[in-house]
Amino acid sequence: MLQSEQISANETILYEHSFDESSHPSTPPNIVIFPYDVSDIQKVVGYANDRSVPLTPYGIGSGLEGQAIPVKQGISLDFQHMNKVLEVRPEDLLVKVQPGITREELNQTLKKYGLFFPIDPGANATIGGMVSTNASGTTAVRYGAMRQQIVDLEVVLADGRKIRTGSLASKSSSGYNLTNLFAGSEGTLGIFTEIVLKVYGIPETVSSVRSCFPSVKDCGQAAVALLTSGVSITRIELVDERSIREMNKFHNTTYEELPTLFIEITGNEAGVNHDTAFTKDILEDLNCSTVLIETDSKKRAVLWKARHELSYAFRHKPNCSTIGTDVCVPLSSLPTIIEKTRKKIDSLGLDGAIFGHVGDGNFHTLILFDPNSPTETEKAETVNEAIVSWALSYGGTCTGEHGVGLGKQKFQKKEHGESLEIMMGIKRMLDPNNIMNPGKIFPELDK
Amino acid sequence: MLQSEQISANETILYEHSFDESSHPSTPPNIVIFPYDVSDIQKVVGYANDRSVPLTPYGIGSGLEGQAIPVKQGISLDFQHMNKVLEVRPEDLLVKVQPGITREELNQTLKKYGLFFPIDPGANATIGGMVSTNASGTTAVRYGAMRQQIVDLEVVLADGRKIRTGSLASKSSSGYNLTNLFAGSEGTLGIFTEIVLKVYGIPETVSSVRSCFPSVKDCGQAAVALLTSGVSITRIELVDERSIREMNKFHNTTYEELPTLFIEITGNEAGVNHDTAFTKDILEDLNCSTVLIETDSKKRAVLWKARHELSYAFRHKPNCSTIGTDVCVPLSSLPTIIEKTRKKIDSLGLDGAIFGHVGDGNFHTLILFDPNSPTETEKAETVNEAIVSWALSYGGTCTGEHGVGLGKQKFQKKEHGESLEIMMGIKRMLDPNNIMNPGKIFPELDK
Repeated sequence: MLQSEQISANETILYEHSFDESSHPSTPPNIVIFPYDVSDIQKVVGYANDRSVPLTPYGIGSGLEGQAIPVKQGISLDFQHMNKVLEVRPEDLLVKVQPGITREELNQTLKKYGLFFPIDPGANATIGGMVSTNASGTTAVRYGAMRQQIVDLEVVLADGRKIRTGSLASKSSSGYNLTNLFAGSEGTLGIFTEIVLKVYGIPETVSSVRSCFPSVKDCGQAAVALLTSGVSITRIELVDERSIREMNKFHNTTYEELPTLFIEITGNEAGVNHDTAFTKDILEDLNCSTVLIETDSKKRAVLWKARHELSYAFRHKPNCSTIGTDVCVPLSSLPTIIEKTRKKIDSLGLDGAIFGHVGDGNFHTLILFDPNSPTETEKAETVNEAIVSWALSYGGTCTGEHGVGLGKQKFQKKEHGESLEIMMGIKRMLDPNNIMNPGKIFPELDK
Repeated sequence: MLQSEQISANETILYEHSFDESSHPSTPPNIVIFPYDVSDIQKVVGYANDRSVPLTPYGIGSGLEGQAIPVKQGISLDFQHMNKVLEVRPEDLLVKVQPGITREELNQTLKKYGLFFPIDPGANATIGGMVSTNASGTTAVRYGAMRQQIVDLEVVLADGRKIRTGSLASKSSSGYNLTNLFAGSEGTLGIFTEIVLKVYGIPETVSSVRSCFPSVKDCGQAAVALLTSGVSITRIELVDERSIREMNKFHNTTYEELPTLFIEITGNEAGVNHDTAFTKDILEDLNCSTVLIETDSKKRAVLWKARHELSYAFRHKPNCSTIGTDVCVPLSSLPTIIEKTRKKIDSLGLDGAIFGHVGDGNFHTLILFDPNSPTETEKAETVNEAIVSWALSYGGTCTGEHGVGLGKQKFQKKEHGESLEIMMGIKRMLDPNNIMNPGKIFPELDK
């Protein structure tokens, strides 16, 4: 039996579980449940499945596509009490956690062992949420996305069965890869109850390079040149001039208001020094107006904090909504699509910022609009659709890291074609009553 | 219509498609078909599905678990004519190939662009075969396995539909990850017709280190120490003294007949020099009897050729069969399981060699036995079962890179538990007539 303090229908609690960081409309659940362990989850799932009650997992609400919004109401399953590090295995470079732990809490624990978990989406998201959307962020160019970090998941299925998807081995050719089928499934296939992740030694040396260019297109071309040069890059972020202006205002920094690449290089001291110098050479050959190497750790921290909070700076402007785009394209298409995006925003008279993880072809556009103006709202959506349409025409994807949730459903058929049927077949097989985060990813499941 | 030269029931051709590099019993197909393109494959699949005729894809026959053996007869689908590089995209660090190309042919083409494809299972396997088993090999410690290299697959399903599983983006959070569901499915879910892979710049500098230890356990401990130290290792192979003895005989080399680590470090010159020196320091602190740094490229080539052909040297001994094990365990369990394995082989009076990719916890034991002696055959199988049983008890997997095929079916239930039902559900959904490589992976599908 669950205890009474684990269940709430309090108005404030319901409201807190009705939205995330996106601009998708909020919907409160009918009830919020706070499980303590896997057996609580099995009870809740059993109850929900018998009565076809929707179940929506909730981490910390930092999602950007509405995954945690219980659009069909029912139960919001809040993981705040399932936030433990269950086991650190330093010699195996593995850690076992519960899904409710945040990445900063995890890194706090790992630091004692000289280890860290590298995936960094900016927000202090929960690990469960990050698994569910296959999150990535600034370090994906070096470490890959969440899917590359997970060796094992414990999952409770809609029928109450508890399964493990992998093992503690760093690779396996045994059977189908269920780990990466569940990772990125946005809560629609099952509820994660334990997660085993790869962890890494904290690098010996870090250097940051900041380099300004006359145009965003020049930045994009420089990023492609660096990535194909073999320099060992850990982060490479593009921030356009509009974003730098906002960054300076929000953080009282004085960065030049020009399109900028923020680069981080990590490794052993000799290698980092070599690659930093080589990076400077390449950037100087490529039309950059400034190259600054930042070795002071405090100044580096300010720089990356500013970059991380950039999205927040825009999203929290008063009287203003934002649509955030998240396409990912082949590297060589990046300069062109960024240039087309800027022209489109300007031609419609909108305000918008462009920034992103250019190391893997993933960039974001934050389009600002007045939600009370139907014209502006429509224009903002036009830009979003144009960007996705360009990305797909270059062979890219509508979402590099935020997931489908609510906002990218309309692009699923165009992106995946017949494959979408296979995905829906797997969903129907594992969740025939459609209780697992219903209303997400697939636009047609309810029909 | 297929052309007559694309279809053969010639005895020799049938025989050539009846076995692979494993010791599993051979079975000839009823017919061999050589498709020229995807439309040929769709025709064959349509025919086979209508009549429930088994279809077994055949690359180059280098598999080690019988995946290409048509155990239910029917059609062997030989990809030798579908071996083209369809597109090199150097600025996107991507290449699109047909499945029948071998990895050496691919690297020949990529070399012109300063690029290479890093996955190296030893054998000159086809890329299609490597995708189907999620192959890896000596470089997985740095680059991961095949699943980490694939961004998109074109697949023909049992019902004749042609799908794409991914895109040209280097990461995606759009929908379920079908790419890695099909990769590693050993031909049981569909036929690959195009494969898009990540490629990498050829490293500037390479150094090799060869280090001998008094015991295999010391080697294993040194490998774990190096991997947790943060040194940037591209290959780290353990070869036991029995293997070195065979290697010296087969290649006329004069390596010391002691348990040995073969290590490769790649990157920029300054970083490689630093890491090579650091590696030497660590190894000397850890009880090694020799550390030799090999910078001469010819001597390095001899060393890695000897390592690669080690398995071949044993497998082709006259009047002798081999069972090759392929477990993968958490790093810290490696020294113990290797020591237990050696004791078991010796205590049964068998001959056997131990070597493997210790950087990711994956090692192989080649157990030699006389196939005409039931006692020896049984003893060899006892060792195999003991190793898998230990590996699973440490949280590992029964196969790190060879796949399940025929030999690892009996361990599937023990390793995957309830998850095996989900895998079989996916199989039944996509291939209801069980025409796609029937008799592989799942022991119970036919019942």
